[in-house]
Amino acid sequence: MNEKIQNRYAFSIDLLKKAGGIALSYYLNRNQLTIECKKGDKQDQVSIADKTVEAKLREAIAEKFPADGFLGEESGYAGLDSEFCWIVDPIDGTSPFLNGLYAWCISIAVLYRDEIVIGMVFDPLHNELFHAKLGAGAYLNDLPIHTLDPAENVQDGLVGLGMSHRVPPKTILPFLEQLLSEGGMYVRNGSGALSLAQVAAGRLLAYYEPHMNCWDCAAGMLLVREAGGMANNILANNGLLKGNFVLAAANQSTYQQLDLMRTI
Amino acid sequence: MNEKIQNRYAFSIDLLKKAGGIALSYYLNRNQLTIECKKGDKQDQVSIADKTVEAKLREAIAEKFPADGFLGEESGYAGLDSEFCWIVDPIDGTSPFLNGLYAWCISIAVLYRDEIVIGMVFDPLHNELFHAKLGAGAYLNDLPIHTLDPAENVQDGLVGLGMSHRVPPKTILPFLEQLLSEGGMYVRNGSGALSLAQVAAGRLLAYYEPHMNCWDCAAGMLLVREAGGMANNILANNGLLKGNFVLAAANQSTYQQLDLMRTI
Repeated sequence: MNEKIQNRYAFSIDLLKKAGGIALSYYLNRNQLTIECKKGDKQDQVSIADKTVEAKLREAIAEKFPADGFLGEESGYAGLDSEFCWIVDPIDGTSPFLNGLYAWCISIAVLYRDEIVIGMVFDPLHNELFHAKLGAGAYLNDLPIHTLDPAENVQDGLVGLGMSHRVPPKTILPFLEQLLSEGGMYVRNGSGALSLAQVAAGRLLAYYEPHMNCWDCAAGMLLVREAGGMANNILANNGLLKGNFVLAAANQSTYQQLDLMRTI
Repeated sequence: MNEKIQNRYAFSIDLLKKAGGIALSYYLNRNQLTIECKKGDKQDQVSIADKTVEAKLREAIAEKFPADGFLGEESGYAGLDSEFCWIVDPIDGTSPFLNGLYAWCISIAVLYRDEIVIGMVFDPLHNELFHAKLGAGAYLNDLPIHTLDPAENVQDGLVGLGMSHRVPPKTILPFLEQLLSEGGMYVRNGSGALSLAQVAAGRLLAYYEPHMNCWDCAAGMLLVREAGGMANNILANNGLLKGNFVLAAANQSTYQQLDLMRTI
């Protein structure tokens, strides 16, 4: 089994670097992108870049591992009952991408039955590839990474926050008020996948979002765990298809502190 | 007078590029930085980089323009009644800088009597220099920039938000709730100066923060105005020394829409 996972791990690294080059080229020429608004929401924009990158990833995976399942943000799913299943977000942070901001990435996770065994987030703009394999630790390019240490409470680092119009403002505002009143501070960069990778790399203390889709966070959750942090189970309660809340933190004590704020 | 301003403009561009190189070198080697906590707040960290960059800027300005006044975040002020006064933030976004995130910059503004006549924000990590001179337009490196167009309401782009522990959470949360309920979305990257430059470049629709110090925003305010946007007068009510709220937007209509949210 380990060899099957390792094959997919090595393949993913090469694949992400190629796909990242395509995405970066679109980003640098973003003014020429044709944009259509998904469900009329200008802030959840699907660009040609998204669709092209996902199509290339899906095609390459299907060619190399034809029996594997696939779940992508843009093109839907197939074969979810396969032994292995790929979960792909071709560009997480579409809005920063289209607006020329810095926080966007490509996210790939691989499930083996019901467990995330590979998680990778690639940020082509800064040439940073975050990658993890279950039980083998987390890496940024060639170096091992670890969550923020020491971290005893929310004042010890920046918390990443995510929100979307999929859930009402009241699902996040009490959390934010509590975080601020306890002396914490936060950032919202527009890419949940990249934020989770930054938790894994010790750049953010933690990340919370009331609802994320699986393709936005599966890779990041494994990165955080393999870097020594703690994260909830995104796959619980049919999370693969319905999404879930996401809480990931540097360690158990900060996880528990934030989990209390989440349930206020 | 124009020649005096132009001399300072040309000088600032060279100066920022040199200072940016120093700051970038510190950033890339940030793990070796000695950090002390200002007023015990770990999130408002003053690093050796901040102090070194400001000292170099102050020294170079004093040598070239000895009669000019100076106001810096780290080293205080002198000669504020001079004809020209320099307002410097050596590293805006210290927390992102120290944590290895992407949003930090150097900000320089020059006042002629009580008017901002030069505003520059340099992001060395992405090699982007945003610069403006009163009445001469705003530029990103060698190209002119303009605020977001078309922009009719808050759904047409991302709003940048800033907050700090200088003001209580209740000064920002109602604004945020209103923004979200009107279908807007936002980012908080941790650098107000860079966010204002991104409004000028049309990457953000607008920026709001309940209280900013002058060195964080004077340059950005001129950038926004020279790029076709609208911004409040940071210098009102002794803002030079006491700071002020900051609202900057792509145009008059979005400014007015956000100003209503601000005063809810």
